[in-house]
Amino acid sequence: MTRGLQIDLHLEPASGGSRRAAVTRALREAVREGRLPPGSRLPPYRSLAADLGIARNTVAEAYAELVAEGWLTARQGSGTRVSPLVTPPVAPARPRAAGGAAPDLPYDLVQGKPDPATFPRTAWAAAARRALSAAPHEAFGPGDPQGSALLREALVPYLARVRGVRTTPERIVVCSGTAHALRLLARVIGGTWAVEEYGLPFHRGLLAEGGVRTVPLPVDADGAVVGGVRGRAVLLTPAHQFPTGGPLHHERRAAVAERARSGGPLVLEDDYDAEFRYDRKPVGAVQGLAPDGVVLMGSVSKSLSTALRLGWMVLPEPLVGEVVAAKGVREQYSSVIDQLTLAELLTGGGYDRHVRRMRQRYRTRRDRLAEVLAQRVPEVRVTGIAAGLHAVVDLPPGAEAPALAAAGRHGVAVEGLSAYRHPKSTAAHRDGLVVGYAAAPERRYGPALDALCAALREALDARGNGSDRSGS
Amino acid sequence: MTRGLQIDLHLEPASGGSRRAAVTRALREAVREGRLPPGSRLPPYRSLAADLGIARNTVAEAYAELVAEGWLTARQGSGTRVSPLVTPPVAPARPRAAGGAAPDLPYDLVQGKPDPATFPRTAWAAAARRALSAAPHEAFGPGDPQGSALLREALVPYLARVRGVRTTPERIVVCSGTAHALRLLARVIGGTWAVEEYGLPFHRGLLAEGGVRTVPLPVDADGAVVGGVRGRAVLLTPAHQFPTGGPLHHERRAAVAERARSGGPLVLEDDYDAEFRYDRKPVGAVQGLAPDGVVLMGSVSKSLSTALRLGWMVLPEPLVGEVVAAKGVREQYSSVIDQLTLAELLTGGGYDRHVRRMRQRYRTRRDRLAEVLAQRVPEVRVTGIAAGLHAVVDLPPGAEAPALAAAGRHGVAVEGLSAYRHPKSTAAHRDGLVVGYAAAPERRYGPALDALCAALREALDARGNGSDRSGS
Repeated sequence: MTRGLQIDLHLEPASGGSRRAAVTRALREAVREGRLPPGSRLPPYRSLAADLGIARNTVAEAYAELVAEGWLTARQGSGTRVSPLVTPPVAPARPRAAGGAAPDLPYDLVQGKPDPATFPRTAWAAAARRALSAAPHEAFGPGDPQGSALLREALVPYLARVRGVRTTPERIVVCSGTAHALRLLARVIGGTWAVEEYGLPFHRGLLAEGGVRTVPLPVDADGAVVGGVRGRAVLLTPAHQFPTGGPLHHERRAAVAERARSGGPLVLEDDYDAEFRYDRKPVGAVQGLAPDGVVLMGSVSKSLSTALRLGWMVLPEPLVGEVVAAKGVREQYSSVIDQLTLAELLTGGGYDRHVRRMRQRYRTRRDRLAEVLAQRVPEVRVTGIAAGLHAVVDLPPGAEAPALAAAGRHGVAVEGLSAYRHPKSTAAHRDGLVVGYAAAPERRYGPALDALCAALREALDARGNGSDRSGS
Repeated sequence: MTRGLQIDLHLEPASGGSRRAAVTRALREAVREGRLPPGSRLPPYRSLAADLGIARNTVAEAYAELVAEGWLTARQGSGTRVSPLVTPPVAPARPRAAGGAAPDLPYDLVQGKPDPATFPRTAWAAAARRALSAAPHEAFGPGDPQGSALLREALVPYLARVRGVRTTPERIVVCSGTAHALRLLARVIGGTWAVEEYGLPFHRGLLAEGGVRTVPLPVDADGAVVGGVRGRAVLLTPAHQFPTGGPLHHERRAAVAERARSGGPLVLEDDYDAEFRYDRKPVGAVQGLAPDGVVLMGSVSKSLSTALRLGWMVLPEPLVGEVVAAKGVREQYSSVIDQLTLAELLTGGGYDRHVRRMRQRYRTRRDRLAEVLAQRVPEVRVTGIAAGLHAVVDLPPGAEAPALAAAGRHGVAVEGLSAYRHPKSTAAHRDGLVVGYAAAPERRYGPALDALCAALREALDARGNGSDRSGS
């Protein structure tokens, strides 16, 4: 249909909905089935519109929707591409390995997931056995949509100790992760939310789907600029701005907490990688400053595994009933057995032990990343490394697209910073790579760093020689 | 505000949305917080509208929405009441027991849930340990939204053997239960669906929320009358009509399968209690007759526990990609560990052993129900008892409301058949109780039956004496 595009869009009216919905669905399908592989470039929307004989706007809107949902990424100078994060195809002819969801490239430096080899299988199995044998019979009846009381009771002292959270079990609602929390909060709070101008497109997509309009807040080295924040709520990553990496400056923390206390926007605190601090004292949650004005969201996706689907919200009291009501009459999502097992792991100390072990491991990996980059690609700056499972490699203007292309050639799955930028951000474009150092298996981490350095070297040298300026 | 109604509706504009949304929310909240307890009667919508100074239609619509969602039930002659199914209050001052979600009445004869005491804790813990130790590392990475391949591979031979399902692992999508399946299918299929005129109001509520219009299909002793079925899809419970209890007549099965094969409405087969057959040969799934025209939905909610949140869809091939896309880029709901454990239980025979044990137990309970009713309340007819975890006690016209009221007085949590009737059904009103015989603990089952019989005796005798005709 279009040069290089292996897709065939069936826009039959039978599939229902608008033209735009049909284009969106057909593109999503093409990505899912692997006809548009991760990283591949889409045709300019004008060409696709011409090929399909439909309005340009229709295709442009479909692209924008898929960018918001995380299926596509749009970068200046590099056009629209399929996200490298997309799961490999669900082709009926090609069954996949159990749980496999990593891109096909050999070196995984995508942020957001712990090394699956580190999951504490034995500790989890033992905790599950203890939890199963101790649970009252009612635990196996219809689940409380607020979450198992045992888990909520175990979370209170843990969050108080580790994050300075002030709450009670009655103000906690268990959910299947931060995405689920945001879906519920979108439904309950609604309206317009301020969000950081860098953040997960996946989250922005969820909010848009839930009817929440988002307006970008500037982000600088001190975190989000929360001074003039308006709207019904403000979604923040105060401990470790995602993905750029700085903590929210203490004056800004105090200011946003104070405003939340006095009727300003509700603070939605995404405490996504709270357990992993390296060089500096942990910063407590903003929630501790204003329990009645802050919703804290946490999960075990970074600390244990994204395969568990367990998270929590710590809520101001008046929101609890509405959030539980939005969740449903019974627990429909989170496994009660996993909830009881996590409670057991929290109270028995196994969770702490695992987090300590992981912290040590990730610190070593982070040091190694900083070290090899300083040696081999000294002209780039590595930022946001005091905490978390990823760092940002800042690049010269225009270097992101060629660096991503080179990374792909060297077999490295990694994301560009531009993919995280709010489409309405007015800040100057910032080039960079978001490098996740947790996901790669131990034996692959060294080779992954070698490949990354080689890719960066290649991209930067080519720029220096003037032989590749296509991305600038 | 209104005689006997302990609610205070704050319709502040700050909560967003329409008046109707505000009324709906405030009522949901009042139910959640226990200000409107399970079984309590709401004021006629005219009185509430007058009290609030808003249009009658607004309140009527809010009531209808909450009925569709399962919060309220509306019965002829008995007005609108809070559903006896509603979870007890989430009052911050009153923490609840772990997982507790049963109504406050001492005798639980509500359908839809197995006895929580029967959950095979030891077998589950052992299977979890085996599954955790055998799983590849990737299993603990971001989950495949289609579901763990191991579980899908284990389901294929199980469903083939037990239900005559013809499929492959590539056509199965794992979800968190039938409610989740319906939400996804509503999004993918859309349009108007035919549904049985008796069915779960909770499901109708989900579909309405997902933008699907439902039109009722008549139900008779041979199941749904599928002859003239139109619309994009038809949602059926062919093995055991829910809740009235008959299997779909074999000629109707063949007819609806044939139409699905030849471009007629897609059949959505809710195979909710497939494992539990007593007196007759199991009827295979309609899916086996037309794998390309039927979506089969199943779950472990009846066979193991509603606390697990694990279900599956068996799909025609062209729908797989769209359903997975609607579910998301990664697994966001079902615990991968539970998925692997269930796979282990299916392949190792533990699941079969548990189902056999439960079948024996439920058959005994069913026999006991039929026996005591025949002895003590011989004028009622018990139907739909060949399968499942519940039976229908058919009552004389007008006897349902007084029977429910008497049940409440005798401490029995049980539902009326009217609560399941589609609001647009044109069939003659049918009075009855839907009696779940699985949920009560073993030692409480006998007393629960005694209390049920006493309540029925009381209600029917009062009618006979002419002293209570309020419900007719």
